[in-house]
Amino acid sequence: MSHKTLIIGAGGVGNVVAFKCAMNADTFGEITLASRTKSKCDAIAENVKARTGVTIKTDQVNADHKEEVIDLIRKTDAEIVINVALPYQDLTIMDACVATGTDYLDTANYEHPDTAKFEYKEQWARDDAFRKAGIMGLLGSGFDPGVTNVFVAYALKHYFDQIKTIDILDCNAGDHGYPFATNFNPEINIREVNSKGRYWEKGEWKETEPMEIKMVWDYPEVGPKDSYLLYHEEEESLVKNIPGLERIRFWMTFGESYLTHLKVLDNVGLTRIDPIEVDGCEVIPLHVLKALLPDPASLGPRTKGKTNIGVVVHGIKDSKEKTIYIYQVKDHQDCYAEVLSQGVSYTTGVPAMIGAKLMLQKVWYEEGVHNMEEFDPDPFMEELNRQGLPWNVIDLESPEALKID
Amino acid sequence: MSHKTLIIGAGGVGNVVAFKCAMNADTFGEITLASRTKSKCDAIAENVKARTGVTIKTDQVNADHKEEVIDLIRKTDAEIVINVALPYQDLTIMDACVATGTDYLDTANYEHPDTAKFEYKEQWARDDAFRKAGIMGLLGSGFDPGVTNVFVAYALKHYFDQIKTIDILDCNAGDHGYPFATNFNPEINIREVNSKGRYWEKGEWKETEPMEIKMVWDYPEVGPKDSYLLYHEEEESLVKNIPGLERIRFWMTFGESYLTHLKVLDNVGLTRIDPIEVDGCEVIPLHVLKALLPDPASLGPRTKGKTNIGVVVHGIKDSKEKTIYIYQVKDHQDCYAEVLSQGVSYTTGVPAMIGAKLMLQKVWYEEGVHNMEEFDPDPFMEELNRQGLPWNVIDLESPEALKID
Repeated sequence: MSHKTLIIGAGGVGNVVAFKCAMNADTFGEITLASRTKSKCDAIAENVKARTGVTIKTDQVNADHKEEVIDLIRKTDAEIVINVALPYQDLTIMDACVATGTDYLDTANYEHPDTAKFEYKEQWARDDAFRKAGIMGLLGSGFDPGVTNVFVAYALKHYFDQIKTIDILDCNAGDHGYPFATNFNPEINIREVNSKGRYWEKGEWKETEPMEIKMVWDYPEVGPKDSYLLYHEEEESLVKNIPGLERIRFWMTFGESYLTHLKVLDNVGLTRIDPIEVDGCEVIPLHVLKALLPDPASLGPRTKGKTNIGVVVHGIKDSKEKTIYIYQVKDHQDCYAEVLSQGVSYTTGVPAMIGAKLMLQKVWYEEGVHNMEEFDPDPFMEELNRQGLPWNVIDLESPEALKID
Repeated sequence: MSHKTLIIGAGGVGNVVAFKCAMNADTFGEITLASRTKSKCDAIAENVKARTGVTIKTDQVNADHKEEVIDLIRKTDAEIVINVALPYQDLTIMDACVATGTDYLDTANYEHPDTAKFEYKEQWARDDAFRKAGIMGLLGSGFDPGVTNVFVAYALKHYFDQIKTIDILDCNAGDHGYPFATNFNPEINIREVNSKGRYWEKGEWKETEPMEIKMVWDYPEVGPKDSYLLYHEEEESLVKNIPGLERIRFWMTFGESYLTHLKVLDNVGLTRIDPIEVDGCEVIPLHVLKALLPDPASLGPRTKGKTNIGVVVHGIKDSKEKTIYIYQVKDHQDCYAEVLSQGVSYTTGVPAMIGAKLMLQKVWYEEGVHNMEEFDPDPFMEELNRQGLPWNVIDLESPEALKID
């Protein structure tokens, strides 16, 4: 029997998902790629056809509107929707899946477009509706969240009786050669850097000033990098799903020059989203910035260097303390050579495909809305090795760098 | 007999000149302030009236057009034109002075609007025309050029038989409390910082990379500041007029944060002057930046701190080597309290008024086109003390910081 798969979203991640689904066409069967702008889907489909020989269909949809998504699901007869559209659109797409009885997967949790607050609450609240509709929703099947959750589940299954602390370490050491450019909306970058940090310790959330806590972590195959404590969404589900957890933190690397550019642009008002008058026109400063910065799509072919994302897990095994580091290193240029995207899109898109593959194969299948760490990590970890994201596990004798508190 | 004075230009410097001429109304007599935008002149005239009781006339003129300037000079019957308009307009105003037989003074030398090259050549070339018309032109009667040239002449008259080296040191330690703002067109700031440096040594001009040569100089009443070697226009006339000079350099302070902001804005393309399309409009990025930055006029009331501009002169007196430092320190808030302008405008505008005063009094008077150092410095130095720019002379035992080469 041939499956039918609908991918919504034709950005960098959508491109990777389309490529990787096509490369696993035995599972995904008839693939449709849809987005607000059909021409972007057509361009991807053309590249997929040229490189893999697989034909994927394309369509147009505005995922802000549930009815449009319902119509599209019915038209394509999809069994699963892989949502790699905007996080603002998670709820309309989930509701369309409930209405049509279709399985659902996404990579990033719902963000209210105005409040910029991201949390699982509204997606978890749809658990009942998913159960009643007899469908499954898999939330956050990207790299982080996604693979990082699976790494934790893998650590718990094979290495620990009890996990005490988790540090998630996200490094993008890619260099595109421009003084400044962003992989995605610079507004989101700015917000990330200007948001208060948050981590969980001894039963409560602790807040930090933006970028207040910094350490240097020596990322294997990359080297030492400034890493800043941020809040990241997988912490919410891991705190809920890993019993007895004493602390979880998330770290992300930012280069000094990158932070300086963001800070200056913010200082000067280039990140403002209220219109100003210039040369007799109303323009939004952030749109001016976007127009000036290199097109993110142009970064792929020029980006060199590697990403390294992993988790350091500390806990107890056979009454002894131990610490392991599970990480995955990916070279940007290898990603581009394989699927015409750089590493940030690749490391998000591949796990989305793997999650959907395990769901279609009923290897990972349970009605209701679920996070990644709720499932057996082993088949996912095997797929990572097979699909371009091989990982390592090492013992850490003395994780000195993480003893910052 | 009452004189008649025409001031062209109603920016920050024009405001100071208008105030200071009004405060010396015995000499300046009937004062007219004109600029492209008459309302700016009216606003200044209103403040001058309120604070000094002196009424000044206002008018409109586009100084790009010689005929308009000629008409205005005839209408006002001015004996002297104080040109504090744009450097692009020096030549049209000079030619209007020749045509009407009117004395002329400016504070900055002619810049071709397209080539951004500034030099005295075209103004000096008008020497004959000025002599034939029986008028005087005084070039560069601001602070630097202007007072710095007078400081050198004063050093030569009273302290040296032979000047060997001159270092001009320009420090603005004002703080307006904004992360970034410029006193004037940011395009000019950027150009200054991105231009090659130049200094004169042993008979020839030597070029440096932009901001290549940096030292820390301890400015009296301000403290140690990063100072960068730039080219500045008074070097051209001083090399010509100080016989036997072995070296002349110009240094200006820039804060690290200021330079970082300029660099980022330049990197991102915000200093571009070619139009780009944003939100369906054509806009010029530099105009967007201008629209976002604080209005320079708003900086005056908030700027705190001091300026310190001076010259370090090294040479021979009675067969002995010696070094002196002549400098002037001005507090931004004192300037604002006196004439509603911050220190950068004040230190340029006051010397313009003094130069014009000495010309009207025939204390400094010689037909033709002249630079400041050609005249007896003593009356100018006395006026500086009287008009708000008191100076100091100190002996430097060991000017270590200047021995950078």
